[in-house]
Amino acid sequence: MSEPEKIEDIPDVSAGKGKGIPNGGNAAKTKEDFDLAAIYVSDAQYNRNIYFDTSPEAVRLYLRYNHWLPQVLLYFFILLDLSLAVFEDPAVFPLPTWATMLVELLCLLVFTIRIVHYAKVIPREKFWKDPKNICIIVIIVLTLVDMIIYGALKATNYYGVRWSRVLRPLLLVNVTEGRQLRRAFRSIRNALPQIFYVFLLFMFSLLIFSLMALKLLGKRSLTTINGSPYFTNYLEIIFDLYVLVTTANSPDIMMPAYNASYYFAIFFILYILINNYIFMSVFLAVVYNNYKYHLKEEVRQLVRAKRHKMVRAFAVLQDQREGREPVVNQANWNQLVRLVQPDVSNAHRELLWSVCDNNNQGYIGKVAFVQLADLLNIEVITLKSRPHPLQSLCPSLYQSAPSRLLCKLVQHQAFVIVYDLIILVNAVFIGLDEKNPLIANSEWAFLALYLLEILLKLYVFEPRAFFSKHSFWNWFDTIIVISALIATIINSSVTSAGIYTSRQILDIVFILRVLRLIRVVDSIKRFRTIINTLIRIGPAILTFGQLILVVYYVFAMVGMELFKHKVKFYGNSSDPAKAYCGNVLLKGTDFAQLNYCKNNFNNVVSSFILLVELTVVNQWHVLSSGFAAVTHGSAKLFFVFFHIIVVIVIINIFVAFVLEAFFVEYSVDKSDLQTSLEKKIEELELAVAQETLEDNLVNAMETIDSDQGTGQSANNKPTLMFKIASKRYRTVDALLQRMFESDLDPEDFAENDDQNGNFANPAFSAA
Amino acid sequence: MSEPEKIEDIPDVSAGKGKGIPNGGNAAKTKEDFDLAAIYVSDAQYNRNIYFDTSPEAVRLYLRYNHWLPQVLLYFFILLDLSLAVFEDPAVFPLPTWATMLVELLCLLVFTIRIVHYAKVIPREKFWKDPKNICIIVIIVLTLVDMIIYGALKATNYYGVRWSRVLRPLLLVNVTEGRQLRRAFRSIRNALPQIFYVFLLFMFSLLIFSLMALKLLGKRSLTTINGSPYFTNYLEIIFDLYVLVTTANSPDIMMPAYNASYYFAIFFILYILINNYIFMSVFLAVVYNNYKYHLKEEVRQLVRAKRHKMVRAFAVLQDQREGREPVVNQANWNQLVRLVQPDVSNAHRELLWSVCDNNNQGYIGKVAFVQLADLLNIEVITLKSRPHPLQSLCPSLYQSAPSRLLCKLVQHQAFVIVYDLIILVNAVFIGLDEKNPLIANSEWAFLALYLLEILLKLYVFEPRAFFSKHSFWNWFDTIIVISALIATIINSSVTSAGIYTSRQILDIVFILRVLRLIRVVDSIKRFRTIINTLIRIGPAILTFGQLILVVYYVFAMVGMELFKHKVKFYGNSSDPAKAYCGNVLLKGTDFAQLNYCKNNFNNVVSSFILLVELTVVNQWHVLSSGFAAVTHGSAKLFFVFFHIIVVIVIINIFVAFVLEAFFVEYSVDKSDLQTSLEKKIEELELAVAQETLEDNLVNAMETIDSDQGTGQSANNKPTLMFKIASKRYRTVDALLQRMFESDLDPEDFAENDDQNGNFANPAFSAA
Repeated sequence: MSEPEKIEDIPDVSAGKGKGIPNGGNAAKTKEDFDLAAIYVSDAQYNRNIYFDTSPEAVRLYLRYNHWLPQVLLYFFILLDLSLAVFEDPAVFPLPTWATMLVELLCLLVFTIRIVHYAKVIPREKFWKDPKNICIIVIIVLTLVDMIIYGALKATNYYGVRWSRVLRPLLLVNVTEGRQLRRAFRSIRNALPQIFYVFLLFMFSLLIFSLMALKLLGKRSLTTINGSPYFTNYLEIIFDLYVLVTTANSPDIMMPAYNASYYFAIFFILYILINNYIFMSVFLAVVYNNYKYHLKEEVRQLVRAKRHKMVRAFAVLQDQREGREPVVNQANWNQLVRLVQPDVSNAHRELLWSVCDNNNQGYIGKVAFVQLADLLNIEVITLKSRPHPLQSLCPSLYQSAPSRLLCKLVQHQAFVIVYDLIILVNAVFIGLDEKNPLIANSEWAFLALYLLEILLKLYVFEPRAFFSKHSFWNWFDTIIVISALIATIINSSVTSAGIYTSRQILDIVFILRVLRLIRVVDSIKRFRTIINTLIRIGPAILTFGQLILVVYYVFAMVGMELFKHKVKFYGNSSDPAKAYCGNVLLKGTDFAQLNYCKNNFNNVVSSFILLVELTVVNQWHVLSSGFAAVTHGSAKLFFVFFHIIVVIVIINIFVAFVLEAFFVEYSVDKSDLQTSLEKKIEELELAVAQETLEDNLVNAMETIDSDQGTGQSANNKPTLMFKIASKRYRTVDALLQRMFESDLDPEDFAENDDQNGNFANPAFSAA
Repeated sequence: MSEPEKIEDIPDVSAGKGKGIPNGGNAAKTKEDFDLAAIYVSDAQYNRNIYFDTSPEAVRLYLRYNHWLPQVLLYFFILLDLSLAVFEDPAVFPLPTWATMLVELLCLLVFTIRIVHYAKVIPREKFWKDPKNICIIVIIVLTLVDMIIYGALKATNYYGVRWSRVLRPLLLVNVTEGRQLRRAFRSIRNALPQIFYVFLLFMFSLLIFSLMALKLLGKRSLTTINGSPYFTNYLEIIFDLYVLVTTANSPDIMMPAYNASYYFAIFFILYILINNYIFMSVFLAVVYNNYKYHLKEEVRQLVRAKRHKMVRAFAVLQDQREGREPVVNQANWNQLVRLVQPDVSNAHRELLWSVCDNNNQGYIGKVAFVQLADLLNIEVITLKSRPHPLQSLCPSLYQSAPSRLLCKLVQHQAFVIVYDLIILVNAVFIGLDEKNPLIANSEWAFLALYLLEILLKLYVFEPRAFFSKHSFWNWFDTIIVISALIATIINSSVTSAGIYTSRQILDIVFILRVLRLIRVVDSIKRFRTIINTLIRIGPAILTFGQLILVVYYVFAMVGMELFKHKVKFYGNSSDPAKAYCGNVLLKGTDFAQLNYCKNNFNNVVSSFILLVELTVVNQWHVLSSGFAAVTHGSAKLFFVFFHIIVVIVIINIFVAFVLEAFFVEYSVDKSDLQTSLEKKIEELELAVAQETLEDNLVNAMETIDSDQGTGQSANNKPTLMFKIASKRYRTVDALLQRMFESDLDPEDFAENDDQNGNFANPAFSAA
């Protein structure tokens, strides 16, 4: 396999094909050409940076590799692999070792198939140069080795540790689809050197203050509230003052000294000011600064790679024209778009074409062609006005005066206000005691009212439009109300049958009732703005969810090996050991006194909940001291380490991300491309007026997302209308790109300064 | 008094004067002219926006108003007024009521004199339009009224409340000099509407979650660790969940539910995720966004006002030239600078002139003149090489080979490293037990070593340069070592005399010993960078210190009236009431069990320390529940209110400020003006090489700050050198201006769009 991807090669290939027909006429593009171009465009659209082989077989394999089914299956098996921790010792639901091992082998098999598939798609030397592939192979091999050793130890009744479980979450990072996660890890890695120096300075300050505390307070024979000596051991002072930075033991750690003299408060206030407020702000500042800087650089590379891919796709599909710039004609372009995104309607495609081919020439040049990837990422809602089915069935009735009055009433602002009031009254009723029969029966009235609301809306608005995929709140309402109705009926029938009162069903009923109240938020415009902003940055926040999952999983595995079954939870039993969590070493500790026995590492679920508690920080010193008491003082290091990684680094990166994303959402307007698309829509008089949309009349129009046959007649009053779902991003990359768009030169194709036309594929070398 | 300040008037005045001498010749400027111009320049330099009267008497009064002495006196009396709280009931050191009242009357008298002085300086209608003047007058009047009422009540033995004490800190905000503080308050006020909507949404989420908690958990008859019912009272649930947002009761509030079932953990994790991580990040984002936006607008106005003032000063001093732009000649300019800043040396002034008059014309135009205010704000260090006094006394000895070797050794990098090692060894010795006689005596050795270091440095470097005002670390070292020496001698003589061992002296000795270790930080370049950044944003952080002082003072006054003497601290007495802080209502509460008795509102010092604890947040629910127990449940509102104002608003603004300042320090380079000044310095070959400075050789040069007589001979090797203390700001405004400099147009004089030439004097309406 040679290197087929150098940019300078591609125009030659195409020129060679067109050689026989020098001017105007062009060689018909083969299916392989379209496949190749479609892959380039699709890679550009989703920012996939895979250096695939361009031979027809490899392209076919690559198409299959990018199919959604194997990707979904891969993630399913990764999750299955991760969730094995629930069944392995220490287990929530114990399964025999052979069963979990068998499932794990199956998972490994799937991963192996996937990586072999990948190896066939890209050139061999590229495959072996990519650290993520090496990582996956190493993980698979190490897991197999570990399983064999563990099996052998088990068979001979020795104690074995399944240490390879720590490697499992790294699969999530190293699979091809884990781009966002790798980027998040890179953000952290890039911020580390800067954080490190601030951290050293912070540690220096901590040591100095501890020394001062030892000298000032250690000799005064003060005692803590438990009667133990106060500030006499240097290492303990360091730990206590580190905990004070996390504010978890404030003001308790200060009280003995403060009780002795007012002056000692100065020491603690100074300490808190310097180490808590100044240093923690500096941590955030350093992390945020680095985050912004490196992300900008990465996004710049991403955009450059995307343009490269589009230029290559252009080179594959271009028509050579002697002495003039090569172009792509409409027919080829149409076929390409159909291949890349089969669900784009004809009308939508024509709209996109008219944006690209602004002068109606029938062909487009390179600059216009390169936009395609971004244009496809703009979510355009195709709307079609369609009469209400009742109007078709019995038009006289539906058009009658009372019916039209009803429609007007339902569409009126007062209707919304009335239902908001009903919800508020409902909230009060929910708060009251449901033992009162009046209150209990009122639930039926409210359910009826809500059902009536939905039916009325269905009467007024076209049902398919009402349940279109963009009408989040309609779906929300209907599902909540119907479920509540079903749950309430089941509950009351079960209760009236007198068999038993099911707590679970009641819980569900209550949750559904309360969830219904959320509806109010949507009526207030200011709230809607904030909520929409939050929803928009949601997918990117999910990347941080994965990041947290990886870190938690590793810490949970290590924690389970270190601390499993050291602390026992007795539930409602009256065992005297319950008071000290079944471990005499805990007698008299805060851990036992606060009844923290269920905060343990005895299975993966408890471990995760414990790690959440540690992330929230408060009382983490009690937890760490508890586990140190049952094992060894150095166990505290595990908790300090977790605090540094999760709270000081990851949470700060998370805050930095939310800040940046929020500013972009608040300040930056639509991108140039969206504006030009909107202009075109308005030019063609196909725009849906924004106010109309705001007034919920969008519900009267149907969203057609794959309406292939509908033509578009610009002269008549259009039956088809477009709207840009302007502030939604199909991909996280699009959000990121927009974050730094202002710094990127739109005309920068940068074919020269790229290293050998090789997409820099920034890889994360795991662990 | 008319309105003399319209910009269009001023050129007329000057033109009228020059009428008799139409061309070339110019009327000699009177002293009044120079005074007026100097005031304009000085106002521009320090960003004072005072609309003063331009009559000669008013100008003279205004000069006196801006003198440092009345300003210092004013702040002294404000502090005196504020510190009266220490002596008033409930007092730390009780004084009779008449004594504190007398002092307060004196303070009020000073404030009245100051405001009368101010009233004479500015036109009457301007005075009455300015809310800050009204505020001060209202505060003075209300305080007098309160004092009379209180005195009358006291005299007739009724209970009186000194409610006007709440108003005292508002003086700090409303005095003319409180510009920075008013700006900080404006930041908050501007952010409030945005914060308010997020806060409403957050409250809505809190209410919904509380309702769900009530329905899910209230009926399960769970109990807390104290045995009280768990989640049965809606208001208590709201409070508990609000506390959970501050993380103060995590994970305790979750434990009863979590012990009942794993599933309830989901509820709490969701709650923490949404309300703690998402909402708190959004609060920061909103505050930060608003902060940036409004600050930019304000700084823009500031810069515009500054340019106006400079244009006016120019109009006063300008020479009319027929058909050409008016100019200011060097003689007038020199006299102006001498008036504005008498401590600028001749050489420094000549340097500034050569920056302004780049083409050596002998006069400068408006654009060059306007720079002056900023040029004066750039701190230029004038350095002069001067021989070591020992060299003058006995040159043969000082120039001898061993002496020169010694100088070389001391200047060598190894000397620094050796002393860093000594400090580290010292740190270990400090950590060890000082009862050991070896350790105790080692202290003398270390003191001798440090003293030797200072003496060696004084031998090598010129003493006046060594103790120049920019050599922070030299001063630090010397003071610490000398004080430690004195304290140690006193301590050992007291101890050996066998009279008694003074704990206080020992404490001072220990603190000084530990402080010495800080020196190490300065040796590591990375640390120095971080520390310098922190020191640079220090003065601006002090503004937040004032802000916190104002808010704390108000809350302390209110808190003392509400909660004084409800909780008692017994110290070491064995009174059984000690266990419940002398209030039976506290029996069995966490407040008493955690021994928080000294956290009370019984005097102003305790109150402030308690408020610091509340700011740190942890255990604030215990404190608030304690005070609610001894008064009424609604007392919790006081604490919630404090949390919202201080933690959600002020701390977030503080973090926003630190973030922004840190980014500016990290990213923006020197301003244009500094660069042009530096260029000029280099042109004139007067620059001190940066490396030389870095190598501490700056110590060998003396800083002369008011060396009036020294000429400057550009041809010879200069004995006088300049260095820009480039990254230090004389004023907080300069830092702010730099923060947004990139967005400001340097040529924008904007004389037209200003409202009537009236400096918009953004005022803070207090209370």
